[in-house]
Amino acid sequence: MGIDPGLRTTGWGVIEVSGSKLTHVANGLCLSGAGSLAARLLALHEQLSEIVTRFAPTAAAVEQTFVNRDAAGTLKLGQARGIALLVPAQAGLEVGEYAPNAVKKTVVGVGHADKRQIDHMVRLQFPGIEIAGPDAADALAVALCHAHHTGGGNRLAAALARAGA
Amino acid sequence: MGIDPGLRTTGWGVIEVSGSKLTHVANGLCLSGAGSLAARLLALHEQLSEIVTRFAPTAAAVEQTFVNRDAAGTLKLGQARGIALLVPAQAGLEVGEYAPNAVKKTVVGVGHADKRQIDHMVRLQFPGIEIAGPDAADALAVALCHAHHTGGGNRLAAALARAGA
Repeated sequence: MGIDPGLRTTGWGVIEVSGSKLTHVANGLCLSGAGSLAARLLALHEQLSEIVTRFAPTAAAVEQTFVNRDAAGTLKLGQARGIALLVPAQAGLEVGEYAPNAVKKTVVGVGHADKRQIDHMVRLQFPGIEIAGPDAADALAVALCHAHHTGGGNRLAAALARAGA
Repeated sequence: MGIDPGLRTTGWGVIEVSGSKLTHVANGLCLSGAGSLAARLLALHEQLSEIVTRFAPTAAAVEQTFVNRDAAGTLKLGQARGIALLVPAQAGLEVGEYAPNAVKKTVVGVGHADKRQIDHMVRLQFPGIEIAGPDAADALAVALCHAHHTGGGNRLAAALARAGA
């Protein structure tokens, strides 16, 4: 399971790894809605917990927050990220963390790819799937990155080669 | 219940409000220990949840994070703060938020007080109590601030006047 955390929208994506075969299971968005900050974090926790319960992933990874110069934005993202890390930990999972550039380098081949390239390569890997939004595509990319890094070798490279990348 | 969040050390303090009387109940520190970020956030969540279960507070407040120029520090604090806001929300509580300067202004009378003054005024308010550390004193100050702001009027001022401040 990959998670791309955000206070307003958190993307999630679940894939299945079987040998060198990668299959899409599901993806979606958690929306924190309106209300106080605590209420929004609670909504995020409940939605993510429900997804972890439903799909019972055996591994999880979270995108490392982009630390920009906007301290208020960094703080908001940090709060959402705390929940995104907590939920799989509560399910007993080790939680991998990957910087956006590491995810892009794994999935697209270069560290400076933009969102459209991520979306394109995720669709190439999983032809015909519906993607709930850019944050869900990023979450699937995080899941692919984690599968690549924990599966050893060039599983993803082989899969992408088969997909015609 | 007041909470002063931090990734390494989170202070907490519980007070009882009965009319204009404020009583100290307990205070302490949650230590996140070593391990991965997710494991530390999980430890923080478990310790804070245990305290909320034990004392069953009817109100909670969290200190607003000081946003400084260190983005990495802001992000760490944000992640801990996400947990500090989540735990009382999971118990069905509204969670008040107060900027450090608001807490200081309420408890010490000025917005630029240092940690020693906070500690001093908390001890003056609750003579003879043991305080687990500066973060626990800050948490008690947050609880006092919330009692003052939600109790209306000058309850804290009257109490502090009685305490000889």
